[in-house]
Amino acid sequence: MNGLIALDWGTTSLRAYWLDEAGEIRETRARPWGTRHLPDGGFDAALAGITAGWPRLPRLACGMVGSRQGWLEVPYLELPADTARLGGVVRSLRAADGLDVHIVPGLRNRQGPDVMRGEETQLLGALALRPALIPDSTWILPGTHSKWARVRHGTVADFCTVMTGELFALLRQHSILCAGSGEAAADPDAFARGVVAVRDSGSAGAFSRLFSARALMLDGALAPDAVPEYLSGLLIGEELRSCLAMNRFRHDAPLQLIGDAALCARYRLAAARFDLDLAEPLVDVAARGLWQIACDIGLARAGSSRAPKETSSC
Amino acid sequence: MNGLIALDWGTTSLRAYWLDEAGEIRETRARPWGTRHLPDGGFDAALAGITAGWPRLPRLACGMVGSRQGWLEVPYLELPADTARLGGVVRSLRAADGLDVHIVPGLRNRQGPDVMRGEETQLLGALALRPALIPDSTWILPGTHSKWARVRHGTVADFCTVMTGELFALLRQHSILCAGSGEAAADPDAFARGVVAVRDSGSAGAFSRLFSARALMLDGALAPDAVPEYLSGLLIGEELRSCLAMNRFRHDAPLQLIGDAALCARYRLAAARFDLDLAEPLVDVAARGLWQIACDIGLARAGSSRAPKETSSC
Repeated sequence: MNGLIALDWGTTSLRAYWLDEAGEIRETRARPWGTRHLPDGGFDAALAGITAGWPRLPRLACGMVGSRQGWLEVPYLELPADTARLGGVVRSLRAADGLDVHIVPGLRNRQGPDVMRGEETQLLGALALRPALIPDSTWILPGTHSKWARVRHGTVADFCTVMTGELFALLRQHSILCAGSGEAAADPDAFARGVVAVRDSGSAGAFSRLFSARALMLDGALAPDAVPEYLSGLLIGEELRSCLAMNRFRHDAPLQLIGDAALCARYRLAAARFDLDLAEPLVDVAARGLWQIACDIGLARAGSSRAPKETSSC
Repeated sequence: MNGLIALDWGTTSLRAYWLDEAGEIRETRARPWGTRHLPDGGFDAALAGITAGWPRLPRLACGMVGSRQGWLEVPYLELPADTARLGGVVRSLRAADGLDVHIVPGLRNRQGPDVMRGEETQLLGALALRPALIPDSTWILPGTHSKWARVRHGTVADFCTVMTGELFALLRQHSILCAGSGEAAADPDAFARGVVAVRDSGSAGAFSRLFSARALMLDGALAPDAVPEYLSGLLIGEELRSCLAMNRFRHDAPLQLIGDAALCARYRLAAARFDLDLAEPLVDVAARGLWQIACDIGLARAGSSRAPKETSSC
């Protein structure tokens, strides 16, 4: 049987895709076994668990699994990085089940400096789905550490990380701002108020507006349970404001989105307040990107026992 | 015996000053008994503990002790607030020891909106020490929730809160950025790098630069133990950048500082990178401000049994 096991292995979660010989997804599984939350038995146990019952196929992984705290460190590739070059520096290890796991490198940007792991593979997959965007496009990948990326001629030319999701979680769980708020209810009005507060701050930005969440709540102008939504608006608004202010990401064409549908919907609402056009999001693009790389290096269609071209073994 | 017990009672700490009949400090005591960290016995026990052995004198307090979560809520006074008006809306309660405690209100700014409690009294004390600044001056009070305030004709005309200290503590304790850092050592170079990174970001600001702390550390360009200092530079730099970008606080004359000497020294280092002139900081100005208000309302020199003018009792 031909095909591929594609692994999108981040810090907090692990997604596995069983791809058939045409690269189509036969089955998808997700487990909370990120590199920081492994089950007993570590990486080997996580891999065995999530692929239980699937055929023995070549495995290709991307994400934090290739970081210093991952299964095997795969050095970053420097920008500008032709996504096709990713395959050339894949590294491999032998898992406890006797088969190899191949791991895609991340990218490093001297400007910033900045790094990504996993998003480079998603971008490659997204470009395969939207070839018209290969010449020049800007991509937003919202998340704990949101990424903005500029693609030119199929090459990741620039990218930047904004810690929107992590900052939101920190403020939500630990700051005085949310001390009085209970379960957050969806509240599009409070969210929009946060976005507009940042937009109208000029170049001052959200940092000096965060405390308004508390003042509005003390005033009775913002319900305690609406504070998280207001903060979400402030932070996503600030991501848009600050990335646009960098003048590194063109936005005269629609910006492209990759990620979770609910989170991307927030970004589209916020973008509308900035008169910014965000396209419908793409999902599951990591599987597509891993398939592209696997084909590139001869891993897909090669059966489970053949080693990829030009990889080093751990 | 005449004099005053002046209480600067915040969320995390309580400072008490025994002032003599001329308003001079005879003794200062500090306890970690902020309104959120009271000893057994609550406010009464904290007051009895910190004033043990001192004479029975009138007590005047400022800060979060007058908030909704404090001992007695004292409504905010609206801007523009003549600091002399503060005395007119002092509220009082009878403590367990049979004597009153009088509490100064905070200020509310419709712009923002924003609120302060305690800093208004510090500003009043600072102006008493620096009367030349009464006509027009900008003040920075660094801290967990830093305040920037504009004073015109002895009136607080505008102010803004920036959560610099709280954000630093959140990132220091909980974020991925400091996951690899141990005890933070003083590192002026790392601090300056953070400040300069924000200054050179144009109007983008620190939000989209936070992740550079991690990328620099992964590169080996920033020691793990230097990350907190770099972040401190980013956040204090962002406070300066964003408050200047608001165009609400004049800075063509030296900006005035009130607060802890070590923290104010950081602000002066950061300000130098912005070509901004910050004056030597003033300290213990809350005691001076409370003395001014006590004199205004006839509480000082009035003995311990006489009620202040125009106050309401709880």
